[in-house]
Amino acid sequence: MEQETRQINLALIGFGHVGRAFARLLIDRRRWFLKEHGLECRITGIATRGHGTAIDHDGLPVQKILGAWKKDAGLGAFHNGPACASCADFIRQCGADILFEMSVQNMKGEPAASYIREALGAGLHVITVNKGPVATHFSQLTRLARQRDVRFLYEGTVMDGAPVFGMVRHTLPATHIHSLRGIFNSTTNYILTQMEQGAPFDAALEYTRNAGIAEADPALDLDGWDCAAKLSILIQALMGGKVKPGDIERAAISEDTGRRVRAALRRDRRLRLVARAYRQGGKVVGKVELQELEVFDPLAAIRGLSNILVMNTDTMREMAVVENDPSVEQTAYALFADLVSLL
Amino acid sequence: MEQETRQINLALIGFGHVGRAFARLLIDRRRWFLKEHGLECRITGIATRGHGTAIDHDGLPVQKILGAWKKDAGLGAFHNGPACASCADFIRQCGADILFEMSVQNMKGEPAASYIREALGAGLHVITVNKGPVATHFSQLTRLARQRDVRFLYEGTVMDGAPVFGMVRHTLPATHIHSLRGIFNSTTNYILTQMEQGAPFDAALEYTRNAGIAEADPALDLDGWDCAAKLSILIQALMGGKVKPGDIERAAISEDTGRRVRAALRRDRRLRLVARAYRQGGKVVGKVELQELEVFDPLAAIRGLSNILVMNTDTMREMAVVENDPSVEQTAYALFADLVSLL
Repeated sequence: MEQETRQINLALIGFGHVGRAFARLLIDRRRWFLKEHGLECRITGIATRGHGTAIDHDGLPVQKILGAWKKDAGLGAFHNGPACASCADFIRQCGADILFEMSVQNMKGEPAASYIREALGAGLHVITVNKGPVATHFSQLTRLARQRDVRFLYEGTVMDGAPVFGMVRHTLPATHIHSLRGIFNSTTNYILTQMEQGAPFDAALEYTRNAGIAEADPALDLDGWDCAAKLSILIQALMGGKVKPGDIERAAISEDTGRRVRAALRRDRRLRLVARAYRQGGKVVGKVELQELEVFDPLAAIRGLSNILVMNTDTMREMAVVENDPSVEQTAYALFADLVSLL
Repeated sequence: MEQETRQINLALIGFGHVGRAFARLLIDRRRWFLKEHGLECRITGIATRGHGTAIDHDGLPVQKILGAWKKDAGLGAFHNGPACASCADFIRQCGADILFEMSVQNMKGEPAASYIREALGAGLHVITVNKGPVATHFSQLTRLARQRDVRFLYEGTVMDGAPVFGMVRHTLPATHIHSLRGIFNSTTNYILTQMEQGAPFDAALEYTRNAGIAEADPALDLDGWDCAAKLSILIQALMGGKVKPGDIERAAISEDTGRRVRAALRRDRRLRLVARAYRQGGKVVGKVELQELEVFDPLAAIRGLSNILVMNTDTMREMAVVENDPSVEQTAYALFADLVSLL
């Protein structure tokens, strides 16, 4: 009477805060996978930049690896497979059905985009939380996935596990998005709303770095690049526009922005880093701007690390999704939700 | 090279504001259905309380019926099928695969619940926007649908087409909802926020009646019943609790509530009709209360006809969905989204 248990092999590139939170989530939900989907997820490969690489086609001992991680032991001791000279080697030899791409990236989305291309080309499904490659190579990567008949999912690139892409894809059929606006960068929103309450810029920035919220290079947050990259993905995935991060006018925030925050407050308004996209003459335009908002604007109510997406549609008029106080666990959950959607 | 077009037969009980908006939406999206799903939706039956019944197994001329409706002509002229002595007759003879239940209901959810039971029993899928039957007979109807291997969907019962149930079902896998709160009744929220701005109670109520937002009997809005029914569905569908509308403590609003609205405003707070559910000793508790909220509470920002649902979960912490200024078109879209999800 026993149901056959299917094995799914996963490989991870990157094993930082998000990767480890995802590995813990998989362990936590092991019984849920068995019960709901009759399958067992094994991690057969982990590749990192600074802690080595491990492959085991019978499944790596993830619990042990997480334990050893605290002692900064690296992955070498767990390797039980072919030698890999490169990440491309790793992708071809890890024996995985699905690659989770979480590597550290630069503004051009490299080397993440190359890893994704390699994996899709080799017939692996790919799930990523990396904005850079998705924003910069959107049409190329989605086309490649279609050609190879595999899935390419990226829910975690915008608002973590809050189901932005999933919601439009699965629950808003035949919907045309006229325009959208939102707050997508937790670091700058935290800094702006902390300054609103009188806290200094540096302390607020430091908090987001320690919480693992800020980008590895926080300049990518402060100069609006992170926000522009996310807006670019929303435009390409949901509005069919061909807008790359570089096409988006950006605003930056710095210590000096404190004066504008306080001036807005005196007028009973709130300064926010607002990303917006709208249609103009058959094209989509994207902008990241510092805007003074009326207090009753839904974006003004978004404080701290929270995020919001407001969409104007033909079917549902104006609809918003809010994510309050996300942490790395919520980014890891995006990978999990994409995984379940793929299964 | 032509793709085979599948025919799906639909029947409608009720042809008021929502039913007619749904019929218009089906006509508008005819090409979308053909292109995306390779199928054609025909309406083979419409039953109403005051305008007669029409059945045509080859598909009713919906465009013509909508045109004739303005002249108050009734459905008799379009009937081209077996005679129906009752709604049960209609359900058995309309030749539909899916029944859309939109009849006028009383507090016990009748006769809607009987129609749904009849249809599920006869092997039809059922989609409804009627809160009453879903709230009052939730376990019975969902069990019956499982036994007959058909779907029973009710997205439109809470927050119209904003994908509350769909979002949890399709995009938040393995998620446990600790608690939830929200504003689910447009009529009372419109009245409260209009009184906040100095408008009189009666004028605000009148507006919601003319806009087709208030219940046929607005007492069901004002005494919190509508809100309690929605909360009951959320608890039963999303939190696994066995809480019927009658188990929910309710607050009412009336002309006198204006004093409390103004008193709250003087303290820089906002009075809202808040529905909330939380777990206590293995059970779920539901309450509908008039609460004074701080201005930065996300529920305080909800004005006019808008609605919000805030969920506290184990995977995504706090997440919210907001629906701004809905109309009957948004309720009709809930039926449409359920239909697509079913296909």
